[in-house]
Amino acid sequence: MKIILATSNLDKVKEFNRILKDFDVDIKPAPYSIKVAETGKDFIENAILKARAYYREFKVPVLSDDSGLEVDVLGKAPGIFSARFSEDGSYKSNIERLLNQIKDIREEKLRARFVCAVCLIDDRDILHVTQEICEGYIIKEIRGDNGFGYDPIFYYPDLGRTFGEISAEEKDKVSHRGRALRKLFSAILLGV
Amino acid sequence: MKIILATSNLDKVKEFNRILKDFDVDIKPAPYSIKVAETGKDFIENAILKARAYYREFKVPVLSDDSGLEVDVLGKAPGIFSARFSEDGSYKSNIERLLNQIKDIREEKLRARFVCAVCLIDDRDILHVTQEICEGYIIKEIRGDNGFGYDPIFYYPDLGRTFGEISAEEKDKVSHRGRALRKLFSAILLGV
Repeated sequence: MKIILATSNLDKVKEFNRILKDFDVDIKPAPYSIKVAETGKDFIENAILKARAYYREFKVPVLSDDSGLEVDVLGKAPGIFSARFSEDGSYKSNIERLLNQIKDIREEKLRARFVCAVCLIDDRDILHVTQEICEGYIIKEIRGDNGFGYDPIFYYPDLGRTFGEISAEEKDKVSHRGRALRKLFSAILLGV
Repeated sequence: MKIILATSNLDKVKEFNRILKDFDVDIKPAPYSIKVAETGKDFIENAILKARAYYREFKVPVLSDDSGLEVDVLGKAPGIFSARFSEDGSYKSNIERLLNQIKDIREEKLRARFVCAVCLIDDRDILHVTQEICEGYIIKEIRGDNGFGYDPIFYYPDLGRTFGEISAEEKDKVSHRGRALRKLFSAILLGV
Protein backbone atom coordinates (compact mmCIF):
# COMPACT_ATOMS: atom_id res chain seq x y z
CA MET A 1 0.00 0.00 0.00
CA LYS A 2 1.28 3.47 -0.90
CA ILE A 3 0.75 5.90 1.94
CA ILE A 4 1.46 9.61 2.36
CA LEU A 5 2.30 11.14 5.70
CA ALA A 6 0.08 13.88 7.12
CA THR A 7 2.93 15.78 8.73
CA SER A 8 5.50 18.39 7.80
CA ASN A 9 7.76 17.38 10.69
CA LEU A 10 10.80 15.79 9.03
CA ASP A 11 11.91 14.14 12.27
CA LYS A 12 8.57 12.30 12.38
CA VAL A 13 8.85 11.32 8.70
CA LYS A 14 12.23 9.74 9.49
CA GLU A 15 10.82 7.82 12.46
CA PHE A 16 7.75 6.61 10.55
CA ASN A 17 9.93 5.20 7.78
CA ARG A 18 12.34 3.54 10.17
CA ILE A 19 9.61 1.94 12.29
CA LEU A 20 7.58 0.71 9.30
CA LYS A 21 10.49 -0.57 7.18
CA ASP A 22 9.57 -4.22 7.86
CA PHE A 23 5.93 -3.78 6.75
CA ASP A 24 4.77 -3.99 3.14
CA VAL A 25 4.02 -0.28 2.85
CA ASP A 26 5.54 2.52 0.81
CA ILE A 27 5.60 5.67 2.96
CA LYS A 28 6.13 9.08 1.33
CA PRO A 29 5.88 12.64 2.60
CA ALA A 30 2.74 14.44 1.34
CA PRO A 31 3.27 16.43 -1.91
CA TYR A 32 2.85 19.58 0.18
CA SER A 33 1.73 20.24 3.73
CA ILE A 34 -1.66 21.68 4.53
CA LYS A 35 -2.79 23.71 7.53
CA VAL A 36 -5.02 21.67 9.83
CA ALA A 37 -6.78 23.28 12.80
CA GLU A 38 -5.94 20.90 15.66
CA THR A 39 -9.18 21.50 17.56
CA GLY A 40 -9.49 17.98 18.97
CA LYS A 41 -9.88 17.35 22.70
CA ASP A 42 -7.23 14.64 22.73
CA PHE A 43 -4.49 12.98 20.67
CA ILE A 44 -6.90 10.61 18.94
CA GLU A 45 -9.23 13.39 17.80
CA ASN A 46 -6.32 15.45 16.46
CA ALA A 47 -4.77 12.48 14.63
CA ILE A 48 -8.16 11.86 12.96
CA LEU A 49 -8.57 15.54 12.01
CA LYS A 50 -5.14 15.55 10.33
CA ALA A 51 -5.62 12.28 8.45
CA ARG A 52 -9.08 13.28 7.17
CA ALA A 53 -7.84 16.71 6.04
CA TYR A 54 -4.95 15.19 4.04
CA TYR A 55 -7.22 12.46 2.65
CA ARG A 56 -9.74 15.07 1.46
CA GLU A 57 -6.90 17.00 -0.22
CA PHE A 58 -4.91 14.18 -1.85
CA LYS A 59 -7.42 11.30 -2.06
CA VAL A 60 -4.81 8.61 -1.37
CA PRO A 61 -4.08 6.54 1.76
CA VAL A 62 -2.85 8.77 4.57
CA LEU A 63 -1.05 8.15 7.85
CA SER A 64 -1.10 10.76 10.61
CA ASP A 65 0.28 11.05 14.11
CA ASP A 66 -0.57 13.21 17.07
CA SER A 67 1.77 12.87 19.99
CA GLY A 68 2.97 14.65 23.07
CA LEU A 69 4.23 14.56 26.59
CA GLU A 70 2.15 14.35 29.77
CA VAL A 71 3.86 15.47 32.98
CA ASP A 72 1.78 14.37 35.97
CA VAL A 73 2.85 17.16 38.31
CA LEU A 74 1.76 19.71 35.67
CA GLY A 75 -1.73 18.20 35.37
CA LYS A 76 -0.63 16.25 32.26
CA ALA A 77 0.58 19.40 30.47
CA PRO A 78 1.86 20.08 27.86
CA GLY A 79 -0.26 17.17 26.45
CA ILE A 80 -1.80 17.92 23.06
CA PHE A 81 -0.07 21.31 23.15
CA SER A 82 3.42 19.77 23.35
CA ALA A 83 4.52 20.99 19.90
CA ARG A 84 3.12 24.49 20.50
CA PHE A 85 4.13 24.85 24.15
CA SER A 86 6.45 27.83 23.72
CA GLU A 87 5.96 30.92 21.61
CA ASP A 88 8.19 29.91 18.69
CA GLY A 89 7.41 26.19 19.04
CA SER A 90 11.07 25.15 18.60
CA TYR A 91 12.26 22.05 20.45
CA LYS A 92 14.69 24.21 22.44
CA SER A 93 12.08 26.75 23.56
CA ASN A 94 9.56 24.04 24.43
CA ILE A 95 12.09 22.28 26.65
CA GLU A 96 13.14 25.58 28.25
CA ARG A 97 9.53 26.44 29.12
CA LEU A 98 8.96 22.98 30.59
CA LEU A 99 12.16 23.05 32.70
CA ASN A 100 11.22 26.51 33.90
CA GLN A 101 7.80 25.32 35.07
CA ILE A 102 9.28 22.50 37.15
CA LYS A 103 12.41 24.22 38.48
CA ASP A 104 10.97 24.78 41.99
CA ILE A 105 9.81 21.20 42.44
CA ARG A 106 12.03 19.33 44.87
CA GLU A 107 12.05 15.89 43.19
CA GLU A 108 14.77 15.17 40.68
CA LYS A 109 12.64 12.85 38.47
CA LEU A 110 9.04 13.71 37.60
CA ARG A 111 6.68 11.03 36.40
CA ALA A 112 5.69 11.56 32.76
CA ARG A 113 4.74 9.71 29.63
CA PHE A 114 4.89 10.14 25.89
CA VAL A 115 1.57 9.48 24.14
CA CYS A 116 1.14 8.78 20.43
CA ALA A 117 -2.10 8.37 18.47
CA VAL A 118 -1.75 7.18 14.88
CA CYS A 119 -4.47 7.23 12.24
CA LEU A 120 -4.45 5.48 8.87
CA ILE A 121 -7.07 5.99 6.18
CA ASP A 122 -6.50 3.01 3.90
CA ASP A 123 -7.07 2.31 0.20
CA ARG A 124 -10.64 1.14 0.92
CA ASP A 125 -11.58 4.44 2.61
CA ILE A 126 -11.58 2.88 6.07
CA LEU A 127 -10.09 4.85 8.93
CA HIS A 128 -8.10 3.01 11.64
CA VAL A 129 -6.81 4.62 14.85
CA THR A 130 -4.95 3.52 17.93
CA GLN A 131 -2.89 5.04 20.72
CA GLU A 132 0.07 3.87 22.79
CA ILE A 133 2.14 5.34 25.58
CA CYS A 134 5.70 5.17 26.90
CA GLU A 135 6.12 5.72 30.64
CA GLY A 136 9.18 7.49 32.07
CA TYR A 137 10.37 10.59 33.92
CA ILE A 138 11.29 14.16 33.14
CA ILE A 139 14.72 15.12 34.46
CA LYS A 140 15.91 18.68 35.04
CA GLU A 141 18.84 18.69 32.62
CA ILE A 142 19.32 18.08 28.92
CA ARG A 143 21.13 14.80 28.19
CA GLY A 144 22.11 13.51 24.74
CA ASP A 145 21.84 14.68 21.13
CA ASN A 146 19.70 11.89 19.68
CA GLY A 147 15.97 11.98 18.95
CA PHE A 148 14.00 15.20 18.83
CA GLY A 149 11.41 17.20 20.76
CA TYR A 150 11.47 16.47 24.48
CA ASP A 151 13.67 13.35 24.04
CA PRO A 152 16.78 14.76 25.82
CA ILE A 153 14.85 15.38 29.07
CA PHE A 154 12.76 12.17 28.94
CA TYR A 155 14.43 9.54 31.12
CA TYR A 156 13.48 5.94 30.32
CA PRO A 157 14.08 3.89 33.48
CA ASP A 158 14.39 0.43 31.85
CA LEU A 159 17.43 1.62 29.88
CA GLY A 160 18.67 4.06 32.53
CA ARG A 161 19.15 6.81 29.94
CA THR A 162 17.17 9.62 28.27
CA PHE A 163 15.69 9.26 24.79
CA GLY A 164 18.42 11.69 23.77
CA GLU A 165 21.09 9.19 24.85
CA ILE A 166 19.76 5.98 23.26
CA SER A 167 20.05 4.91 19.63
CA ALA A 168 17.20 5.19 17.12
CA GLU A 169 16.80 1.39 17.19
CA GLU A 170 16.59 1.34 20.98
CA LYS A 171 14.05 4.16 20.92
CA ASP A 172 11.81 2.59 18.25
CA LYS A 173 11.52 -0.66 20.22
CA VAL A 174 9.97 1.01 23.26
CA SER A 175 8.70 4.41 22.15
CA HIS A 176 5.06 5.49 22.04
CA ARG A 177 5.31 5.95 18.26
CA GLY A 178 7.00 2.59 17.69
CA ARG A 179 4.38 0.77 19.74
CA ALA A 180 1.40 2.55 18.17
CA LEU A 181 2.59 2.08 14.58
CA ARG A 182 3.51 -1.60 14.99
CA LYS A 183 0.19 -2.31 16.68
CA LEU A 184 -1.83 -0.59 13.96
CA PHE A 185 0.01 -2.11 10.99
CA SER A 186 0.23 -5.58 12.51
CA ALA A 187 -3.55 -5.57 12.95
CA ILE A 188 -4.35 -4.18 9.50
CA LEU A 189 -1.78 -5.98 7.35
CA LEU A 190 -1.17 -9.18 9.31
CA GLY A 191 -4.45 -9.53 11.23
CA VAL A 192 -2.62 -9.95 14.56
CA MET B 1 -15.74 -11.20 18.87
CA LYS B 2 -18.34 -10.04 21.41
CA ILE B 3 -19.53 -6.54 20.62
CA ILE B 4 -22.00 -4.21 22.32
CA LEU B 5 -24.03 -1.66 20.39
CA ALA B 6 -23.68 2.03 21.22
CA THR B 7 -27.32 2.82 20.56
CA SER B 8 -30.62 2.76 22.39
CA ASN B 9 -32.59 2.67 19.11
CA LEU B 10 -34.13 -0.82 19.01
CA ASP B 11 -34.83 -0.55 15.26
CA LYS B 12 -31.12 -0.08 14.69
CA VAL B 13 -30.25 -2.99 16.99
CA LYS B 14 -32.52 -5.23 14.87
CA GLU B 15 -30.88 -4.05 11.63
CA PHE B 16 -27.35 -4.48 12.98
CA ASN B 17 -28.07 -8.07 14.01
CA ARG B 18 -29.74 -8.93 10.72
CA ILE B 19 -26.96 -7.42 8.57
CA LEU B 20 -24.14 -9.00 10.57
CA LYS B 21 -25.65 -12.47 11.06
CA ASP B 22 -23.22 -14.02 8.56
CA PHE B 23 -20.15 -12.64 10.30
CA ASP B 24 -18.42 -14.28 13.25
CA VAL B 25 -19.52 -11.66 15.75
CA ASP B 26 -21.83 -11.73 18.75
CA ILE B 27 -23.76 -8.44 18.85
CA LYS B 28 -25.58 -7.41 22.04
CA PRO B 29 -27.29 -4.20 23.12
CA ALA B 30 -25.25 -2.24 25.69
CA PRO B 31 -26.12 -3.07 29.35
CA TYR B 32 -27.64 0.42 29.57
CA SER B 33 -27.60 3.43 27.32
CA ILE B 34 -25.52 6.48 28.11
CA LYS B 35 -26.02 10.10 27.09
CA VAL B 36 -23.51 11.18 24.44
CA ALA B 37 -23.27 14.81 23.31
CA GLU B 38 -23.33 14.49 19.52
CA THR B 39 -21.18 17.53 18.90
CA GLY B 40 -19.44 16.22 15.78
CA LYS B 41 -19.43 18.14 12.51
CA ASP B 42 -20.41 15.10 10.44
CA PHE B 43 -21.61 11.49 10.66
CA ILE B 44 -18.09 10.10 11.08
CA GLU B 45 -17.25 12.40 14.00
CA ASN B 46 -20.51 11.55 15.76
CA ALA B 47 -20.10 7.81 15.24
CA ILE B 48 -16.62 8.07 16.78
CA LEU B 49 -17.89 10.12 19.76
CA LYS B 50 -20.56 7.50 20.51
CA ALA B 51 -18.23 4.51 20.19
CA ARG B 52 -15.54 6.08 22.38
CA ALA B 53 -18.07 7.08 25.07
CA TYR B 54 -19.48 3.53 25.28
CA TYR B 55 -15.97 2.02 25.18
CA ARG B 56 -14.88 4.26 28.09
CA GLU B 57 -17.96 3.19 30.07
CA PHE B 58 -18.03 -0.57 29.38
CA LYS B 59 -14.43 -1.38 28.32
CA VAL B 60 -15.50 -4.01 25.77
CA PRO B 61 -15.66 -3.89 21.95
CA VAL B 62 -18.27 -1.39 20.79
CA LEU B 63 -20.06 -0.77 17.51
CA SER B 64 -21.75 2.57 16.82
CA ASP B 65 -23.66 4.12 13.97
CA ASP B 66 -24.48 7.67 13.00
CA SER B 67 -26.82 7.99 10.09
CA GLY B 68 -29.23 10.37 8.46
CA LEU B 69 -30.87 11.74 5.39
CA GLU B 70 -29.49 14.45 3.09
CA VAL B 71 -32.05 16.22 0.89
CA ASP B 72 -30.23 18.22 -1.77
CA VAL B 73 -32.89 20.93 -2.20
CA LEU B 74 -32.74 21.58 1.56
CA GLY B 75 -28.97 22.10 1.53
CA LYS B 76 -28.45 18.50 2.69
CA ALA B 77 -30.73 18.94 5.74
CA PRO B 78 -31.69 17.26 7.99
CA GLY B 79 -28.26 15.53 7.78
CA ILE B 80 -26.70 14.81 11.16
CA PHE B 81 -29.86 16.25 12.77
CA SER B 82 -32.16 13.67 11.14
CA ALA B 83 -33.09 11.94 14.40
CA ARG B 84 -33.67 15.25 16.20
CA PHE B 85 -35.34 17.14 13.32
CA SER B 86 -38.70 17.72 15.02
CA GLU B 87 -39.40 18.77 18.58
CA ASP B 88 -40.35 15.33 19.92
CA GLY B 89 -37.95 13.46 17.61
CA SER B 90 -40.52 10.77 16.75
CA TYR B 91 -40.34 9.23 13.26
CA LYS B 92 -43.81 10.62 12.52
CA SER B 93 -42.99 14.19 13.54
CA ASN B 94 -39.66 14.14 11.72
CA ILE B 95 -41.36 13.05 8.48
CA GLU B 96 -44.11 15.65 8.94
CA ARG B 97 -41.59 18.43 9.36
CA LEU B 98 -39.66 17.32 6.29
CA LEU B 99 -42.78 17.03 4.11
CA ASN B 100 -43.86 20.46 5.32
CA GLN B 101 -40.54 22.00 4.27
CA ILE B 102 -40.79 20.63 0.73
CA LYS B 103 -44.54 21.05 0.14
CA ASP B 104 -44.16 24.14 -2.09
CA ILE B 105 -41.51 22.60 -4.32
CA ARG B 106 -42.92 21.71 -7.72
CA GLU B 107 -41.01 18.48 -8.39
CA GLU B 108 -42.57 15.23 -7.25
CA LYS B 109 -39.26 13.47 -6.48
CA LEU B 110 -36.42 15.24 -4.69
CA ARG B 111 -32.91 13.94 -4.90
CA ALA B 112 -31.68 12.65 -1.51
CA ARG B 113 -29.45 10.08 0.08
CA PHE B 114 -29.17 8.12 3.27
CA VAL B 115 -25.70 8.28 4.86
CA CYS B 116 -24.37 5.88 7.48
CA ALA B 117 -21.07 6.04 9.35
CA VAL B 118 -20.18 3.01 11.46
CA CYS B 119 -17.42 2.83 14.06
CA LEU B 120 -16.02 -0.28 15.73
CA ILE B 121 -13.56 -0.26 18.61
CA ASP B 122 -12.23 -3.80 18.61
CA ASP B 123 -10.78 -6.13 21.24
CA ARG B 124 -7.27 -4.77 20.58
CA ASP B 125 -8.33 -1.17 21.32
CA ILE B 126 -8.16 -0.18 17.65
CA LEU B 127 -10.88 2.06 16.27
CA HIS B 128 -12.16 1.47 12.71
CA VAL B 129 -14.59 3.75 10.85
CA THR B 130 -16.16 3.92 7.45
CA GLN B 131 -19.15 5.55 5.75
CA GLU B 132 -21.46 4.54 2.92
CA ILE B 133 -24.45 6.11 1.20
CA CYS B 134 -27.63 5.04 -0.54
CA GLU B 135 -28.90 7.38 -3.29
CA GLY B 136 -32.62 7.89 -3.90
CA TYR B 137 -35.45 10.43 -3.81
CA ILE B 138 -37.82 11.88 -1.26
CA ILE B 139 -41.46 11.62 -2.33
CA LYS B 140 -44.31 13.70 -0.93
CA GLU B 141 -46.42 10.90 0.50
CA ILE B 142 -45.90 8.12 3.03
CA ARG B 143 -45.77 4.67 1.40
CA GLY B 144 -45.39 1.35 3.23
CA ASP B 145 -45.11 0.18 6.82
CA ASN B 146 -41.69 -1.49 6.73
CA GLY B 147 -38.42 -0.06 7.98
CA PHE B 148 -38.27 2.95 10.29
CA GLY B 149 -37.34 6.62 10.37
CA TYR B 150 -37.64 8.28 6.95
CA ASP B 151 -37.94 4.93 5.13
CA PRO B 152 -41.61 5.39 3.99
CA ILE B 153 -40.79 8.61 2.08
CA PHE B 154 -37.42 7.43 0.69
CA TYR B 155 -37.94 6.15 -2.86
CA TYR B 156 -35.27 3.79 -4.13
CA PRO B 157 -35.32 3.98 -7.95
CA ASP B 158 -33.64 0.60 -8.71
CA LEU B 159 -36.49 -1.22 -6.96
CA GLY B 160 -39.19 1.33 -7.87
CA ARG B 161 -40.47 1.41 -4.28
CA THR B 162 -39.86 3.22 -1.01
CA PHE B 163 -37.84 1.70 1.81
CA GLY B 164 -41.20 1.37 3.57
CA GLU B 165 -42.43 -0.92 0.79
CA ILE B 166 -39.48 -3.31 0.45
CA SER B 167 -38.60 -6.25 2.67
CA ALA B 168 -35.88 -6.16 5.31
CA GLU B 169 -33.71 -8.43 3.13
CA GLU B 170 -34.14 -6.15 0.10
CA LYS B 171 -33.30 -3.11 2.22
CA ASP B 172 -30.18 -4.61 3.82
CA LYS B 173 -28.69 -5.45 0.41
CA VAL B 174 -28.67 -1.85 -0.79
CA SER B 175 -29.04 0.34 2.29
CA HIS B 176 -26.42 2.75 3.62
CA ARG B 177 -26.23 0.72 6.87
CA GLY B 178 -25.95 -2.62 5.08
CA ARG B 179 -23.18 -1.36 2.84
CA ALA B 180 -21.22 0.34 5.62
CA LEU B 181 -21.40 -2.63 8.01
CA ARG B 182 -20.48 -5.25 5.39
CA LYS B 183 -17.56 -3.12 4.20
CA LEU B 184 -16.20 -2.60 7.71
CA PHE B 185 -16.55 -6.20 8.89
CA SER B 186 -15.33 -7.72 5.62
CA ALA B 187 -12.16 -5.63 5.92
CA ILE B 188 -11.57 -6.32 9.61
CA LEU B 189 -12.55 -9.99 9.86
CA LEU B 190 -11.86 -11.26 6.35
CA GLY B 191 -9.19 -8.81 5.18
CA VAL B 192 -11.10 -8.00 1.97
